Amino acid sequence: MTELSEARQVDFAAGVARSALAGTTGEFDSWLADCRDRFHTRVEPVPLDRLDGWSVHPETGDIGHHSGKFFTVRGLDVEVVGAPIPRWSQPIISQPEIGILGILVREFDGVPHLLMQAKVEPGNVNGVQLSPTVQATRSNYTSVHGGKAVPYLDYFRDTSRHTVLADARQSEQGAWFHRKRNRNMVVRVDEPVEVLDGFCWLTLAQVHALLRLDDLINMDTRTVLCCFPFSGAGVAYRYPGARDFAADLVGALDPAAPAAHTMGELLSWITDSRTRHDVRVREIPLNEVTDWRWAGGRISHDTGLFFDVVGVGVTAAGREVGRWHQPMLRPRGLGLVAFLVRRVGGVPHVLMNAKVEPGYFDVVELAPTVQCTPDTYAELPAEARPPFLDEVLAAPPERVRFDAVHSEEGGRFMHARTRYVVVETDAEVAPDHPDYRWLAPHQLATLLRHSHYLNVQARSVLACLHSLVTPEGTP
Amino acid sequence: MTELSEARQVDFAAGVARSALAGTTGEFDSWLADCRDRFHTRVEPVPLDRLDGWSVHPETGDIGHHSGKFFTVRGLDVEVVGAPIPRWSQPIISQPEIGILGILVREFDGVPHLLMQAKVEPGNVNGVQLSPTVQATRSNYTSVHGGKAVPYLDYFRDTSRHTVLADARQSEQGAWFHRKRNRNMVVRVDEPVEVLDGFCWLTLAQVHALLRLDDLINMDTRTVLCCFPFSGAGVAYRYPGARDFAADLVGALDPAAPAAHTMGELLSWITDSRTRHDVRVREIPLNEVTDWRWAGGRISHDTGLFFDVVGVGVTAAGREVGRWHQPMLRPRGLGLVAFLVRRVGGVPHVLMNAKVEPGYFDVVELAPTVQCTPDTYAELPAEARPPFLDEVLAAPPERVRFDAVHSEEGGRFMHARTRYVVVETDAEVAPDHPDYRWLAPHQLATLLRHSHYLNVQARSVLACLHSLVTPEGTP
Repeated sequence: MTELSEARQVDFAAGVARSALAGTTGEFDSWLADCRDRFHTRVEPVPLDRLDGWSVHPETGDIGHHSGKFFTVRGLDVEVVGAPIPRWSQPIISQPEIGILGILVREFDGVPHLLMQAKVEPGNVNGVQLSPTVQATRSNYTSVHGGKAVPYLDYFRDTSRHTVLADARQSEQGAWFHRKRNRNMVVRVDEPVEVLDGFCWLTLAQVHALLRLDDLINMDTRTVLCCFPFSGAGVAYRYPGARDFAADLVGALDPAAPAAHTMGELLSWITDSRTRHDVRVREIPLNEVTDWRWAGGRISHDTGLFFDVVGVGVTAAGREVGRWHQPMLRPRGLGLVAFLVRRVGGVPHVLMNAKVEPGYFDVVELAPTVQCTPDTYAELPAEARPPFLDEVLAAPPERVRFDAVHSEEGGRFMHARTRYVVVETDAEVAPDHPDYRWLAPHQLATLLRHSHYLNVQARSVLACLHSLVTPEGTP
Repeated sequence: MTELSEARQVDFAAGVARSALAGTTGEFDSWLADCRDRFHTRVEPVPLDRLDGWSVHPETGDIGHHSGKFFTVRGLDVEVVGAPIPRWSQPIISQPEIGILGILVREFDGVPHLLMQAKVEPGNVNGVQLSPTVQATRSNYTSVHGGKAVPYLDYFRDTSRHTVLADARQSEQGAWFHRKRNRNMVVRVDEPVEVLDGFCWLTLAQVHALLRLDDLINMDTRTVLCCFPFSGAGVAYRYPGARDFAADLVGALDPAAPAAHTMGELLSWITDSRTRHDVRVREIPLNEVTDWRWAGGRISHDTGLFFDVVGVGVTAAGREVGRWHQPMLRPRGLGLVAFLVRRVGGVPHVLMNAKVEPGYFDVVELAPTVQCTPDTYAELPAEARPPFLDEVLAAPPERVRFDAVHSEEGGRFMHARTRYVVVETDAEVAPDHPDYRWLAPHQLATLLRHSHYLNVQARSVLACLHSLVTPEGTP
């Protein structure tokens, strides 16, 4: 008999708040130090045409695994009608399957804890970082690796006995991946869960404190974190000690908080962006890509900008398989991802940019205010610089609310690091600007319940913004 | 200076209710009769290989227009891993561009009116039907026809001075179109609008009354109609005279009405459906399609089921261009689209089916409870019949809340007619059924603000369900 769901309408935002304000419960530092002692990788350069298990297709030049699984490095031909650079081609990682990124949540003494994993990835600058409970490609869980089963995966594959707090497919870097998506899930269990070696329960407060350190909370964690149900009616009452910026931020997570634009206006703006831009993307053989060259066993752009495709040999301890080779994408320069935040009627709003990237599933996604590699513009004239870049770089320290460097996905990207910044501003933007809008944080939360609205950079820096609800020094 | 949007937060649902309960204001019947006198088409069969302006590609067999615009009839190779019919190929209409379907709304004496168009389409069984204010492919408004400009289009292309009540891209028939989408828009203007020949202001009450007649409110109108903001807080107070089923329906349009599943549960179910189904679709040359044959200047399935691809010559009065040839898709048999509606805790819920169709942009969309061509199953065993088909066909008259036959898009489909039915039921479905869920009408309204959740059949029958808020005999 079908019954109403009211009994299941738990106030998740209240639990999130308890977790975001909780003190430390375990011996995290010694656990992490122990994991760092025991889990590591050694990574050596290997020319792309000499990778074990991978081959360069004799006709197309595509770099693929012998199994046909994992991913392929191909070419992408991109046409963006009417854009300043209307056409280009580039190497791209083609990985059309949908993996799972999942964080398991369980309450201890009424405080939700997150089951985090100490994971080494070959692309990490520092070996171990904290990943979600499950970080699995479809190849992982169909065991193409020939490795061990993915622990805890069943909680995310059959959720019928649990409570799903978040579940949507989200894109990853649209300049580096073609149509890569992962299912971002948060699942709450009410039963005992065995804690395996390399796993640890942490509160949101602890994760938020760790987000302030460089290179520790990995990309997959950040994208799932931002999907936690922070937003809710009356959420301000859940953070009674919040002061100053944190208090205003908490207020802006309440769906009743007024906003610069209605949801209807924002959705229409997104629909218009996705209809207006005529983007034509097709995968092409890697050897038909122009302005890129093979040299020294890697592929680089003629200008030395953007990224290289490189090969690596990995020897790992504490991971599913001990030794393997693989191609990776190594970006040039430190990335910058920034939110400008401005109070509108007292409510902090975030400036979002409707951005075209070739790898997106649906033309345009909402990107942060600034998303670029500043070095790329070092020798270009001022008018070529991305909007608001100088506003971010010149922000006085007292206006910088968050500032840390984090790593991008260490399984595909080699030493890909990005500076994440949240800056308060008084900047104005025309309310009918075609590419920018101020959104209240509760509106971002509404969009995040659905797929493909916020890009991975926006999700990462949103996790950083959310972390400010936890007072510094809490745990 | 950016300001808060509160002043723009109009209670749209109140205006919708005033329009849905309004009496007749104009001389609709005589206007329609006059349009029918003056606007008609003559349609003659023409073999597919002798269509003026179109050609059959010598190598692929694809049927395309000389301009490269409009649409192409191609082949589609479909693989649905694990399905009862795991692989097939079929002809398909390929039209990847995004058109606009828009209804202009203006208040007269406080009552919103819709600017409707009397439009002839070659595929209509009865010539004139009522279409939205604007029904334009991108070819239309870039004037590939060489015809006249599309009237009223500017209201939808630049909405900055108006109020957008709905704006999302929605799919069309996923078995007949590959990735066809239209932008469904409702735009309210507060300025005088010239009423051109063939256009007429109608209230929602009038449109709802006309929906009870066969073959008058065309498909494009139905899909835009269902996106009107019917749902809203306290909406029951807007329909003070509602009785019985209408009263319960109005109550279920209030977002505060309890529901069988939370939105989080429903979104997770949709994400799971879209991840679980492994659907591989690619366009192939039309002459590589198997089990279909060219004969007598048309293309038909070997079994005589599904549809034919036919050619027609059209001579029209009252339309942009006077004479043209084109291919069309002619379905075999009358379609059936039905909602089963069941009260859960007193709140009417609709049984939705997560359905794979090859032409969808994103794997799965929510279809009505039943969507099929009953004749297809006439000679098949009982276990091959679609779930709930017999429940619909055998419904006692007092449980049938809506029953009318409507036409599908007359610009692409020849005499494509579907019986739309809303039936009350006591049927039970397991709450964790992989493919079916009970949704409250306000939950459907929430999904409709976004793209690609409800398929065109569901949107059509939802417009029929909404029409029940208007008491019979109102205008």
